[in-house]
Amino acid sequence: MVDIMPPEYMGYDRTIAVFSPDGRLFQVEYAKEAVKRGTTCLGIVFNGGILLATVKPKGKLIVPTSAEKVFQIDDHVGAVASGLLADARVLVNQSRVRAQVHKITYEEPIDAWGLARVVGDRMQLSTLYAGLRPFGVAFLLAGVDQSGVHLIEADPSGMLYEWQAYAIGKGAVVANKIFSQKWKANIDKRTAVQLAIDVMNKTEKGKDTVLDIAVIGSGKKFKKLSEDEIKKMK
Amino acid sequence: MVDIMPPEYMGYDRTIAVFSPDGRLFQVEYAKEAVKRGTTCLGIVFNGGILLATVKPKGKLIVPTSAEKVFQIDDHVGAVASGLLADARVLVNQSRVRAQVHKITYEEPIDAWGLARVVGDRMQLSTLYAGLRPFGVAFLLAGVDQSGVHLIEADPSGMLYEWQAYAIGKGAVVANKIFSQKWKANIDKRTAVQLAIDVMNKTEKGKDTVLDIAVIGSGKKFKKLSEDEIKKMK
Amino acid sequence: MVDIMPPEYMGYDRTIAVFSPDGRLFQVEYAKEAVKRGTTCLGIVFNGGILLATVKPKGKLIVPTSAEKVFQIDDHVGAVASGLLADARVLVNQSRVRAQVHKITYEEPIDAWGLARVVGDRMQLSTLYAGLRPFGVAFLLAGVDQSGVHLIEADPSGMLYEWQAYAIGKGAVVANKIFSQKWKANIDKRTAVQLAIDVMNKTEKGKDTVLDIAVIGSGKKFKKLSEDEIKKMK
Amino acid sequence: MVDIMPPEYMGYDRTIAVFSPDGRLFQVEYAKEAVKRGTTCLGIVFNGGILLATVKPKGKLIVPTSAEKVFQIDDHVGAVASGLLADARVLVNQSRVRAQVHKITYEEPIDAWGLARVVGDRMQLSTLYAGLRPFGVAFLLAGVDQSGVHLIEADPSGMLYEWQAYAIGKGAVVANKIFSQKWKANIDKRTAVQLAIDVMNKTEKGKDTVLDIAVIGSGKKFKKLSEDEIKKMK
Amino acid sequence: MVDIMPPEYMGYDRTIAVFSPDGRLFQVEYAKEAVKRGTTCLGIVFNGGILLATVKPKGKLIVPTSAEKVFQIDDHVGAVASGLLADARVLVNQSRVRAQVHKITYEEPIDAWGLARVVGDRMQLSTLYAGLRPFGVAFLLAGVDQSGVHLIEADPSGMLYEWQAYAIGKGAVVANKIFSQKWKANIDKRTAVQLAIDVMNKTEKGKDTVLDIAVIGSGKKFKKLSEDEIKKMK
Amino acid sequence: MVDIMPPEYMGYDRTIAVFSPDGRLFQVEYAKEAVKRGTTCLGIVFNGGILLATVKPKGKLIVPTSAEKVFQIDDHVGAVASGLLADARVLVNQSRVRAQVHKITYEEPIDAWGLARVVGDRMQLSTLYAGLRPFGVAFLLAGVDQSGVHLIEADPSGMLYEWQAYAIGKGAVVANKIFSQKWKANIDKRTAVQLAIDVMNKTEKGKDTVLDIAVIGSGKKFKKLSEDEIKKMK
Amino acid sequence: MVDIMPPEYMGYDRTIAVFSPDGRLFQVEYAKEAVKRGTTCLGIVFNGGILLATVKPKGKLIVPTSAEKVFQIDDHVGAVASGLLADARVLVNQSRVRAQVHKITYEEPIDAWGLARVVGDRMQLSTLYAGLRPFGVAFLLAGVDQSGVHLIEADPSGMLYEWQAYAIGKGAVVANKIFSQKWKANIDKRTAVQLAIDVMNKTEKGKDTVLDIAVIGSGKKFKKLSEDEIKKMK
Repeated sequence: MVDIMPPEYMGYDRTIAVFSPDGRLFQVEYAKEAVKRGTTCLGIVFNGGILLATVKPKGKLIVPTSAEKVFQIDDHVGAVASGLLADARVLVNQSRVRAQVHKITYEEPIDAWGLARVVGDRMQLSTLYAGLRPFGVAFLLAGVDQSGVHLIEADPSGMLYEWQAYAIGKGAVVANKIFSQKWKANIDKRTAVQLAIDVMNKTEKGKDTVLDIAVIGSGKKFKKLSEDEIKKMK
Repeated sequence: MVDIMPPEYMGYDRTIAVFSPDGRLFQVEYAKEAVKRGTTCLGIVFNGGILLATVKPKGKLIVPTSAEKVFQIDDHVGAVASGLLADARVLVNQSRVRAQVHKITYEEPIDAWGLARVVGDRMQLSTLYAGLRPFGVAFLLAGVDQSGVHLIEADPSGMLYEWQAYAIGKGAVVANKIFSQKWKANIDKRTAVQLAIDVMNKTEKGKDTVLDIAVIGSGKKFKKLSEDEIKKMK
Repeated sequence: MVDIMPPEYMGYDRTIAVFSPDGRLFQVEYAKEAVKRGTTCLGIVFNGGILLATVKPKGKLIVPTSAEKVFQIDDHVGAVASGLLADARVLVNQSRVRAQVHKITYEEPIDAWGLARVVGDRMQLSTLYAGLRPFGVAFLLAGVDQSGVHLIEADPSGMLYEWQAYAIGKGAVVANKIFSQKWKANIDKRTAVQLAIDVMNKTEKGKDTVLDIAVIGSGKKFKKLSEDEIKKMK
Repeated sequence: MVDIMPPEYMGYDRTIAVFSPDGRLFQVEYAKEAVKRGTTCLGIVFNGGILLATVKPKGKLIVPTSAEKVFQIDDHVGAVASGLLADARVLVNQSRVRAQVHKITYEEPIDAWGLARVVGDRMQLSTLYAGLRPFGVAFLLAGVDQSGVHLIEADPSGMLYEWQAYAIGKGAVVANKIFSQKWKANIDKRTAVQLAIDVMNKTEKGKDTVLDIAVIGSGKKFKKLSEDEIKKMK
Repeated sequence: MVDIMPPEYMGYDRTIAVFSPDGRLFQVEYAKEAVKRGTTCLGIVFNGGILLATVKPKGKLIVPTSAEKVFQIDDHVGAVASGLLADARVLVNQSRVRAQVHKITYEEPIDAWGLARVVGDRMQLSTLYAGLRPFGVAFLLAGVDQSGVHLIEADPSGMLYEWQAYAIGKGAVVANKIFSQKWKANIDKRTAVQLAIDVMNKTEKGKDTVLDIAVIGSGKKFKKLSEDEIKKMK
Repeated sequence: MVDIMPPEYMGYDRTIAVFSPDGRLFQVEYAKEAVKRGTTCLGIVFNGGILLATVKPKGKLIVPTSAEKVFQIDDHVGAVASGLLADARVLVNQSRVRAQVHKITYEEPIDAWGLARVVGDRMQLSTLYAGLRPFGVAFLLAGVDQSGVHLIEADPSGMLYEWQAYAIGKGAVVANKIFSQKWKANIDKRTAVQLAIDVMNKTEKGKDTVLDIAVIGSGKKFKKLSEDEIKKMK
Repeated sequence: MVDIMPPEYMGYDRTIAVFSPDGRLFQVEYAKEAVKRGTTCLGIVFNGGILLATVKPKGKLIVPTSAEKVFQIDDHVGAVASGLLADARVLVNQSRVRAQVHKITYEEPIDAWGLARVVGDRMQLSTLYAGLRPFGVAFLLAGVDQSGVHLIEADPSGMLYEWQAYAIGKGAVVANKIFSQKWKANIDKRTAVQLAIDVMNKTEKGKDTVLDIAVIGSGKKFKKLSEDEIKKMK
């Protein structure tokens, strides 16, 4: 839970886009709580590529493709999101459109940071205007472009950071501690997938979910791993 | 009923588009309550097609066609809705227009997911702006297109999921439990209709209502079942 | 009166376009109260046509035509309204304009359901935006078009239903009970008028009012009944 | 005074365009109170014409023409208003412009009901949007056009009624009772003026005011009666 | 001070453009209080012309022309204002622009009532929209045009009255009583100036102010009186 | 401090653009408090020219030109400001642009009063709309143009006054008392500078500040005095 | 912490763009608190150039370039920011676009003050409109242009100051005290870097951070110092 707000601060947090006396934006902090309640999502950079992983609901009735939580944005870019999935869905679709428009306009794929800035700007805007609420979602964007491999975090304030390995959502603290201990530069793809599986198992062990992992390699092609491929990697 | 809101949360839920301290959007959760109070609606995928079912009011005075609750969107797409029917009616009409515009513009029918995204985006938008309330309705969209058979749920937050069999509205918990036990891949149309009749009887047994069932088969044509056809299927 | 609202719900009903915790829109429900306080209005489908009836104020000073409460929309469509008459007047005028525009644009009269959807969409919109109040009026639209005879109800939420016989306003409960017992398919015009007179007498017996009845027959022409014609029908 | 509002209704009446639980619009009802506090105004239809009457302030210093309260809108249309005179002045001016525009566009004078609808629509609009207050004024519009002689009342809700003789403002109850007893169809102009003088004397007997009467006869010309003419009529 | 507002009316007066239960617009009434706290201003019609008078601050440091409170609008029109002087200044400037635009467009000077209506309409508008406050100023406009000599009062509600002699501001009650007793039709200019001086001395006797008087005669030319001219008139 | 607001007035001062019952605009009065807390600024007209003076922060680290508080608007116009300096900065920049646009459009420099009206109109507008706060700054504009030498005060209400010598800000009372005693018409430039130094020393004696003085002489050229020039003048 | 706000001031600080009775804008003051909680950032002018310094997060997982806190705006301009980093990121990006547009339009680089004014104007605007919150960030902009070397501070009110050496953020008080004692005009680059290192060590000693320093020299080229270069400078 968020820090207890002292009673004399009552009201600062019920209005959008207002600072508290000590310079905090409570609505943005509450939106970050929505992220902390979301499914654990992670990204790991490995030698020549990057992976994204989370869990997706499993069940006889749900159609697996619709429940996938690792989104492809473009050939060379993907994303995972923790928090309000409807917010994520809309921002993902807008990003897909933006990526296509960029490709058509400039005849080359959009780079990962360019796309991240579009997402971050939209999210910051929502913290500034009284007529909007912040987006209740954080993203990990993964891309391989001319400038290399990028894993970029976008949080509800619209801030962007790039990581070698990072996790968001309810298992983030546990996951990032493991990354600090186990992630190494230039690990190979197999090691990265094993690390992802290990972290997801420690943070999201629901029997109703199944791993959802995608990889973008040096070929700059987003590719989902099948359940078989995941099993073989273990 | 929705979870009891602790008294110190008073006010977070009376303003549109504001997060509570633990990152919830109460207005969206209350809109989902409107869905839970709505008539039970369900969709079932069968071998080569899909059905939608709900009940419609019966009576000497009401004109049956106006009371129908399974809406045709296009030749190959239909929908059922639980919650505020006026909201449903408006979104259904907008979807019909969108489907026609797509057909004229691209000279091919819109696919089910394309239509679902239009509905979901409109619903998510209503959760983001302070000047709008969320839509108080959930949909099951059923479509048969080039990519196959799709049963897509859209909830008031604007989230979309695809199912093999799914129910929404006040009988949803009971209905989805039955689906988990009885639905099987590649069941034939007759079995699917029997399953739908069984579920509707267990969840909506009012004497003032009558079953409303539509089927979209491999011919990609939305077709209402007559009362006689429903009786024969039993 | 509307259900007693428990004290912990205070405030949900004073803001436009906000859901209560159990998913209700109080402002729409209160607008429906304005309808329940309105004059009883009814419509009856008979063999080859349809009638609309209500009472209008009687008096030496009031000009009868201005007090008429059965509105002609187009040659083949009419309406009665319960609730805030100023809201009704404005929506009726907008419908008349819409009907004329349709006739000029497409060179054929608008059909009854097309017109009803225009009215319903406008009313639903007013329940969605924070800057508007719902319309405090319900309509019965009566039309005879290519597809037959239609009696369509539009309520403040923007929902539309089609009936064979239906009443709205303060006598609606009594009236609709009588319709359930006495209305039969294919009754002739005379029987329908007698039924309307009987119902109006039982629900609106003010000495300051007089019956206002209009009929649209198979000639698709809206026609007011004179006081003499009404007397003869008894 | 308006009905006492029970304490549990507190707040419904302080926000524009919100319904109370029993379906009332308090802001419109309060605007009608402004009308009930206004100067008594009346209109009387006589054989071949119509008159409007009210009182205007008398005094050495005030310029009589500026204090006139019977407004000419066009050659053949006039108006009196009770309530907030500034609101009246603005609506009268807008009506004059509208009448001139109609004359220029269609090369014939606007009819009385067309003008009344313009005024009524503007007034209803102000009851619908949260950003506006209702107009605090009621009108009696008097016109002689192709369709005959018309005395039309427009109230703050935007409702329109046509009368043979009618009064608004603080003396309305007394005046309308007299009209019920004494007005007869086809009275001549002299009798109508005498009736108007009688009613005004019984409702507005201030020593600081003087009668203001205008007549539109079969020549369709608005004409103010001079003090001498009024005296001779007595 | 304004009438005491009973406690149960609390809140009606803190929101712009809302009626109280007895049909009053408190914000407009409070704006009129700003006028009652303003400097006394007066206008007097005399034989063939009109004068405007008020006091302006006197002092070694202030530049007399900037402190002048009798504003010239056009050759033949002037104004004095009581209340918020910044509001007055802006409306005066807008009036000057309007007068010039009229002269250029129609090749003749604007008439006094035309100008007054522009000012009154702008002021009424500010009482109608929730996003604006009323103007806290009243005007006396003086003009000599084809239709004669006019002294027109515009108050914060946007109402317009024409007077032979009239005063506004904190000395208005005293001043208007004197006018009732002493003003006569066809007084000559000298008598009018003497009356103005007498009234101003009785209502504004501050040692830090000096008389500010302007006259528009039959030549239709606005002319300030010098201190010498004022002295000679005494 | 501003007058104590009696408790029953609570709330009138927390909403923008609302009158209190006695006709005051508290937000404008509070904005004037921001001016009274600002640095003392003054202007003095002398024979053939005008000076502006205030203090600017002194220190090893601050760049003197950036701390200058006497702003040049155009060759012949300058300004000093007390209150919120960011508001001042923005209005000064807008004035500079306006002056340049005027020069280019009309091929002559803007006159001082024309520029002052632009500033005053912008400030008055901010007191009228509910969506804006008043500007928290007052200006002294100094200009030499065809019509002579002008020292114009613009306050947060948007009112404009012209002075021979005037001070605003926290030392205004003391300063203006000195001006009343010591300023004389046609003093020479040296005497004016000495008066300015004397007044600034008596109102702003901080050791961290240094005098900032500019002069516009008959050559219509704004010129800052160097520290040396100021010393020589003493 | 900000000064304790007395209880009778309750509410002035919860609404955007409202003055308190003593003329303060609490929301702007609270935004400045966000700055005071931010990372210490500093700028130092040296002989022929300028440096910017702050700390950036260090760690195995974070990608150093993404964590850099000294932003390049254009070849010749850079910036550091304390406060809400998402706000900073957005304003930095807008500044980069503005700089490029200027270069393309005028075929010369934008000067440092021109860019600072763009940033300051945008920040002041956010303090003026009720629909926006202030930006919760302060900037130090460093530029070398035709007019020399400039270090400009922009605070949340939109005010701009130019310094020889200045620090913002949580270590600002300590840092600026050191600058007063140790900064000298015409220090060489090495001395400036040593001073920056010394100040940063005294204000931000977290083990998880590393110094981030950039220099713009007489070649007008923004250049980051590598960790090696920083070590050698010590």
